[in-house]
Amino acid sequence: MNVIPAEIVTPAVMIDVDVLDRNIERMASSMLSRGLRLRPHVKTHKTLEIARKQLAAGAAGITVATIGEAEVFAADGVKDIFIAYPLWVDAQRAERLVALASSCRIAVGLDSAESATAMGDRLGADAGRVEVLIEIDSGHHRSGVLPDEAADVARAAASAGLNVAGVFTFPGHSYKPGMPTGAASNENEALGQAANALMQAGFEVSTISGGSTPTALIHSETVANELRPGVYVFGDAQQLELERCSWDDIALSVAATVVSRHDAKGGNVRRVVVDAGSKILGSDRPDWATGYARLPEYPEARVTALSEHHATVVWPESSELPALGTRLRVIPNHVCLAMNLVDEVTVVRNGGVVDTWRVAARGRNS
Amino acid sequence: MNVIPAEIVTPAVMIDVDVLDRNIERMASSMLSRGLRLRPHVKTHKTLEIARKQLAAGAAGITVATIGEAEVFAADGVKDIFIAYPLWVDAQRAERLVALASSCRIAVGLDSAESATAMGDRLGADAGRVEVLIEIDSGHHRSGVLPDEAADVARAAASAGLNVAGVFTFPGHSYKPGMPTGAASNENEALGQAANALMQAGFEVSTISGGSTPTALIHSETVANELRPGVYVFGDAQQLELERCSWDDIALSVAATVVSRHDAKGGNVRRVVVDAGSKILGSDRPDWATGYARLPEYPEARVTALSEHHATVVWPESSELPALGTRLRVIPNHVCLAMNLVDEVTVVRNGGVVDTWRVAARGRNS
Repeated sequence: MNVIPAEIVTPAVMIDVDVLDRNIERMASSMLSRGLRLRPHVKTHKTLEIARKQLAAGAAGITVATIGEAEVFAADGVKDIFIAYPLWVDAQRAERLVALASSCRIAVGLDSAESATAMGDRLGADAGRVEVLIEIDSGHHRSGVLPDEAADVARAAASAGLNVAGVFTFPGHSYKPGMPTGAASNENEALGQAANALMQAGFEVSTISGGSTPTALIHSETVANELRPGVYVFGDAQQLELERCSWDDIALSVAATVVSRHDAKGGNVRRVVVDAGSKILGSDRPDWATGYARLPEYPEARVTALSEHHATVVWPESSELPALGTRLRVIPNHVCLAMNLVDEVTVVRNGGVVDTWRVAARGRNS
Repeated sequence: MNVIPAEIVTPAVMIDVDVLDRNIERMASSMLSRGLRLRPHVKTHKTLEIARKQLAAGAAGITVATIGEAEVFAADGVKDIFIAYPLWVDAQRAERLVALASSCRIAVGLDSAESATAMGDRLGADAGRVEVLIEIDSGHHRSGVLPDEAADVARAAASAGLNVAGVFTFPGHSYKPGMPTGAASNENEALGQAANALMQAGFEVSTISGGSTPTALIHSETVANELRPGVYVFGDAQQLELERCSWDDIALSVAATVVSRHDAKGGNVRRVVVDAGSKILGSDRPDWATGYARLPEYPEARVTALSEHHATVVWPESSELPALGTRLRVIPNHVCLAMNLVDEVTVVRNGGVVDTWRVAARGRNS
């Protein structure tokens, strides 16, 4: 139902719980049918209620980006958490990791011998309680080592007393039109090479973990035994424009109001301004995107500019300019940023408000 | 002092209070010497402690973007608030505006006859307690009417029982290299035309309000009697690259740690990854910017990519790659977004932590 309930004050993040449930179920079924473990990345939603749904649908555990996120979900009873990030562990972080290890299985990322040594030193006698996965660069060229460097990092980790459990990668270069299939192949190849290198070096490789909503449904045969998609729970304008979801799959939208309206007279661009800006949508805008957001009820409209509290929407000639005060739904480009901007979200079903969820791990950057 | 105090856990927003105080004082003095009222936009910092400093330095009142922000600062005792936004006033917003009018002088923006009528209807007998300023489009082409349309909107506002106080504009097209001076002229001209049109239509024009940190120090003679810069308190990478501030003027930085390090072997780009991403820096990146952020200690380094928790920093050939675990300061492109991502900031002086401030109006989007 594409209705904004009357009691919602714009701008506000709305989640259609039926679409959310369907997305969670679809990914869980697909993973199960392929014999893969699902470890969803909860940085996307940062919300306890949604993680509980994912675990109830069969997720083996969760993925987070920071120790702070791990703490929030561990406190809610999650028993298996992977921090998919190449942590630099100082004394304060070591203490927090050990505390986490007391309540759940905890794994962290690692992409250098130096980080392994530092982590082992700071964890001391507790080093063996933290699993590490070696991060592999499968083509995104952000963090991670090349597959042929993985064994060196693993050996340094083992020397530092850490518990080497396997390898992981994030094929972030999948976020470009035409790239998901190729990125999925790169991911598969890099993980395979790195896992083999570790096995040849004598390591038992229990986890081979891949990533990414754009690639997660592509693999039919993969060397990975675990995938970590995040955005699939909601979908967003990037996934739509990458053809990784349809309009009907999008569970999260921002309710907005038309506050300014300009027809084409006097050389004006024919546009409206709505009250959802970068402080609720986030301002990610890859160069291939058609704009800063999308409007599901007006697929030809284009969000050509975003200020903190204004989205400028160039209106299609084929459609009448909406009246001032009209309430419109806006789909953010990157849903993980939108969730991190609000303290709570309104949960809707069939056009009515059914709940409010707190974004429990909002702002947990460290 | 370009030092990150040891007790700061990265990533974290740090404010150098000496630089902040100097920026506040400089703008206040400049405005005073030109006989202009300063009404700083507090959406930049959303912090009570900083608004108090601005008012103590002589600001006539504050500017906010939303009713929610106004409520936070009014509760702290601010007596004169302008919501520089073309509000669409529904019943809920009308109630909140009336409540604000009981504790302070409140003015709002308006850019259409329809919005004026709706606002007057909803405010009813209280309409006269809310001042309105007609928003003028001085070249940014976002919201606002053309100067020759201002009198029509003002007449509609008066008919609706609202208290027309003048005109305002935001010359947002100043945010481009080479544009600030021209945008300041456009602003001056548009405000002059609109104010004249209102006076000719019989209105008393008590407020002629201009905007923007890039233009605020340019005007020597201006028709405006009030300016609303915001970013000047902190500076940021955009202001630096627009040559509107120097490195020494930047009061806010994000403390970050090198978590991944890659030399040039194997065709790699020579880079480090630090743990400050779009969830603390914000991801605004105008096409003229050199990257997603800047590093004050390494002005030739370039932040070429930003993920939620990673900034990829391409390192200059002239400088050695920093070791893993090195702590670096990062300057966000757009400081207003960074402040809106954290619940509190660490206040530093001479390399030591002196206070923690809550970002009291964080997330107040409506």
